[in-house]
This record gives sequence, C-alpha cells and structure tokens, in this order.
Amino acid sequence: MEDSNRSWYFAERPDGEPDADSFELREEPVPDPDAGDLLVRVGYLSVDPYMRGRMRDTESYAEPWDVGDVLKGGIVGEVVESKSEQYDAGDFVTGQGTWSEYSVVDADDVAPVDPEVADLPAYLGVLGMPGRTAYFGLLDVGEPKPGDTVVVSGAAGAVGSVVGQIAKLNGCYVVGFAGSDEKTQWLTDDLGFDAAINYKDTDDYGAALDDVAPEGVDVYFDNVGGPITDAVFTKLNLDARVAVCGQIAHYNDEDVPTGPRKLPLLIAPRAKVQGLLVGDYATRFGTASEQLAQWVANGEIAHRETVVDGLENAPDAFLGLFSGDNIGKQVVRVAE
Amino acid sequence: MEDSNRSWYFAERPDGEPDADSFELREEPVPDPDAGDLLVRVGYLSVDPYMRGRMRDTESYAEPWDVGDVLKGGIVGEVVESKSEQYDAGDFVTGQGTWSEYSVVDADDVAPVDPEVADLPAYLGVLGMPGRTAYFGLLDVGEPKPGDTVVVSGAAGAVGSVVGQIAKLNGCYVVGFAGSDEKTQWLTDDLGFDAAINYKDTDDYGAALDDVAPEGVDVYFDNVGGPITDAVFTKLNLDARVAVCGQIAHYNDEDVPTGPRKLPLLIAPRAKVQGLLVGDYATRFGTASEQLAQWVANGEIAHRETVVDGLENAPDAFLGLFSGDNIGKQVVRVAE
Repeated sequence: MEDSNRSWYFAERPDGEPDADSFELREEPVPDPDAGDLLVRVGYLSVDPYMRGRMRDTESYAEPWDVGDVLKGGIVGEVVESKSEQYDAGDFVTGQGTWSEYSVVDADDVAPVDPEVADLPAYLGVLGMPGRTAYFGLLDVGEPKPGDTVVVSGAAGAVGSVVGQIAKLNGCYVVGFAGSDEKTQWLTDDLGFDAAINYKDTDDYGAALDDVAPEGVDVYFDNVGGPITDAVFTKLNLDARVAVCGQIAHYNDEDVPTGPRKLPLLIAPRAKVQGLLVGDYATRFGTASEQLAQWVANGEIAHRETVVDGLENAPDAFLGLFSGDNIGKQVVRVAE
Repeated sequence: MEDSNRSWYFAERPDGEPDADSFELREEPVPDPDAGDLLVRVGYLSVDPYMRGRMRDTESYAEPWDVGDVLKGGIVGEVVESKSEQYDAGDFVTGQGTWSEYSVVDADDVAPVDPEVADLPAYLGVLGMPGRTAYFGLLDVGEPKPGDTVVVSGAAGAVGSVVGQIAKLNGCYVVGFAGSDEKTQWLTDDLGFDAAINYKDTDDYGAALDDVAPEGVDVYFDNVGGPITDAVFTKLNLDARVAVCGQIAHYNDEDVPTGPRKLPLLIAPRAKVQGLLVGDYATRFGTASEQLAQWVANGEIAHRETVVDGLENAPDAFLGLFSGDNIGKQVVRVAE
C-alpha cells in the first residue's frame, strides 16, 4: 500500500458548462478507518450526470458539494483494512466513496461484490445504481405491457441501455435515441433494440419517430430532455407513461430552460409524466440486483463500460458525459 | 310549441381568438324525433372551454366540429315529445344536444333531472360534467390527503370551484387562483377556500404562493396553464400530484406555446403530472352524481351559475369564457 492518497476536491462552482477549474487534485496521507469502517483501495470510480446538480449551491435530492469538499461518488474496490466484522481485507465492495485512490467507507453502507459474477466496472453500471434506476424507472413508472412501443432517450448510456433491454424482455417494441452511428449500431445489433435514431443525423425527430414507430409512443423513458423529448411528447398514445429520469440537456443551463409547453399535449392522451429517483426503491434493491445479475449471467442483458484510465483523468471522464463520449457506463479505472 | 327552431351553426374556423364570425344563427322547422328519440325544449345550454378544441380541424378527444354543422353541447330541458318509453312529455332531462331552442336527443343518451333537487342550470355545472370532472380529477388523479396543500387554477370556474370544495371536504388546505376580487372573495367567503390569489394583482405568482402556501404544493389542479402553472411547478412538494384538466390560457394559441420547461422540475419531488378526461370515468358517473347531489343538498358544496339570457347570445357567452366573464358555471338561458 502506498503512503499517499490522491483525491479530487471541489475547487469552484461552475457557471454553465463545467471545466477543469472546478477540480483540484490533492495528495494527502492514506486515511485511517474508524471502528465499523473499511479502508478501500478504489478500483473503479463512477462519474454520473446527476453530479452536475451537486455542483450547484441549491438543495436538491443529492446533497450539494461544498467548495473545498472531497468529491463523492460510487466506487468499487478492494478492502485493504477492515475495522468491521462484516468484511475482511481482500473482499471486494461497492458503495458511495470518494474520488480517491483510497476511500474510507462505513461497512454498513457498502455491498459485497463477487468478481466472479461480473467484472468490477459492471457493479457501477448494470449491477449498480444505473441498472437499478433502469429497472424501477421502467417497470414501476413506465409500466410496460407486451406490444407497447417504448422510446428511450440517452439510449446508449448507462441507464438507457438497460431500460431498452428490460423493455425487450417485457415484449415491447423498443426505439432508442443516441448520438452516433456506433451507438445506434450497438443498440440494434448487440442490445436487440428494434430501431435506433442517431439524433445528429436529423433535425426532425418527429419524422424520424414516425418512420420507425408509426403507432406512436406508449412509454417514454427520458434521460435527456430538450428537442428529442419535445418531439416524443407529440407522439404519445392514449394512457402513455413518461418516466423522467434525467434531463442532461439542461444540467448545464444557468437560466431556466424554455421550450414548447407540454401540458396541453397531456390531456387528449391522458398521459402520465412522473419524475423518478432510484433511492425511493431502496427497500427493493435486493430484488432488482438479483434479477439484473441473473439477466447478465444468462446473457439476456448485455452491458458495456467506457473506461478512462487513471484517477487524474476523472474530471475529463465526468465532463465527457455532457458531450456523449461514453457508450454504456462511464467509469474511471483508479487501480487494477 | 313554436313552429320554428333557431339553432347556431359553425360558420368558420377561427384563427386564434374566435369571434362572432364563427357562428351563424339559422331558423328551421322544429325537428321530428325518430323512434327512441326525444324532442327537448332546451331550457339551458352549456358553453365550455373545451369547445374551442372542437373548432380545430384536428382529431382530438372531442370530435371536431365541421364547418356547416349545428353546434353541439350540454343541454338541460323539458321533453315535449317522446318516442321512447323511458320518458314522457313534461319530464326534464340533461345530456348532449344542440345549440338550439329544440333539440332531438336519443333517450338512451340523456339522464333524468329532478328540478326539486336543484335548479336546472346546476345540472350543467356542479351536477353535470364539470362537477364530475372536479370529482374524478381531484380524487382519482390528485389523490388529496388530509393536510395537503391543494392549489387550483381557474378556481372560480365551473370545475375549479367544485375542486376546491371537495378538497376542503377532504381536509386539505386550499388555495385558488382567480381573476377578480369578486371571484377571490367568493372563493374564500362563500366556498371556504383558505386563500385566493387575484392573479391580476401581481406578476409574481411564486411570491404570492409563498405568502399563502409557505409549505409548498402537494396537489395542483390545473385548468389554465401559462404563467400561473409555471409558478406552481416551482413549488411542488415531494410526491406532488398535478391533474391537467384544462389549459384555457393556450386554447386560442395557433403556434405551439412555449414557456419554462417543467420536466427538470419533476425529478427532485418525483412529481406526477397527468392529463385527465372525465369520459374515462363513465362507469362511475352514478356514484359521483349521487355524492355531488348529496353535498349540494346538504349545503356542503355551494354552486353558482352565470346566466346569459337568450339563445342569440350563446356565442358571446362562449367567447366570454376566454376573458373570464363567468363566475361558476357559464350557461345560456334559452327558455324558462
């Protein structure tokens, strides 16, 4: 074990699109775990779009980061020192930690990881928070029925890619929006989506939808917002359900974003639109994780991670989320 | 019985705000009822905001009016000739008819009216479609719980005035938006609303809400849309429910209306927004009507109708809806 521990700190609140100025790498001694804690050597670190919200000085569902704080997020790694009877050194765990080489976590707040079931990065994606978000968001909010047309924005992302595959397992016709041909090919060729639209190829998302989903939209799982979402709302079928999971198109907006009003579009189809946060389903995480692990083990759900190497590149990995650099889950490899 | 029958016909699709040019009064012979039909002398005629949608040449939940068609809407009146065993001449009925002095209706499609229970106009308001809309929209979509803060836009209208009173009967704290001091006084003094905001007195609806509903909004029943709705969406509490019943602020828009995006506001509170149409609850109309009649009979729900005299003034009564001329239900008195 090294003596020193590098960690990313929150240096400055961004105005609009964040850049490197918001991040500061510091070198400090490796921390000592207290009773009940574990010292974890971080293998992989998760960067997620919702973290942009934590950079704001406004209360929301995720606690705001204070300037000067160490950055927090999902990690998966190896226990190197245990002050808890629950884990031994050498065990692998996942949970909320810090953007560091070594992170101290409460043993009660992490979950065990079996590297035999899946590679470590999968525990930050399909077998982690994004997978559970897809599971509960689609099944509980989207309520897909066999034969439904399910449209997913951000479909090649960590959440969207799982949403579409769960929808296929539920007998739906699935269309994804993504931002490159490589992504749309992955969706249709590897993940079994029925159709995928490269939104960079057209300005008329409504016409693109008409081409591949002429019967309209029964379920819309929205990770993005903006003009894609504007188009989908004009195609909602009777009793359509919209799960508002993310709005990455607007996370860097400093002014209140404007666009076509959607409420007038909800009346005729009696559509339901609902915001979702995965934390609300915490009591059922076990069920979801078991099911997702089984689907992954059976090969019924494919997954992919985009890996950026080195803790020093974590800010770039985070910033890349907003330009769609990732296919599947974006992670940072901190150690082997 | 007169020999001639005056009726309003749809003369021209409006562009933007409709005016008298859309309406043409014709005089024709009194129609003969076929077998199973009733000839009804119309006592009162209902004009409703949703009819603006029927003036458009686009399919929606209510069948579009064709140019040259007689105008259709809710009526209450007296059977003057019956070709059905269900009703006799002299009975009073309510249902969908025409903007006429005499209207032929299918006996299967009307409901009996007891003028001893309530005056005829009430059957077009609190005991008619608007009352049932309030009932199902609030209870089924809004799901109010005791102690909830319920906000209603268009609160002094036919639907909103009933919504607020049902919310009070369910133990809620109720705030209404309306467009005159006479209306807000009616809401608080006669209908028991806890607070009412005259939206013409302020530009800052958010601040006005903070004053009277500092604990935020649990249920929003929206009849209006536009800037009032924009403000309410910034005040939604955890698990808030929004019933989108009407969007009268936008019914005359020819371009797609724009405004602040609302989906980003739904995630943190996990709010649910749902469009509603009363027709979906048709199998439970009996329950609602019985309950509403009982509340009216007990004096637990007050009601008011704004009466315009004379069939010739029906277009003005309709157009007045968009400038908020009515308090409570707007009706047209066609005959005594």
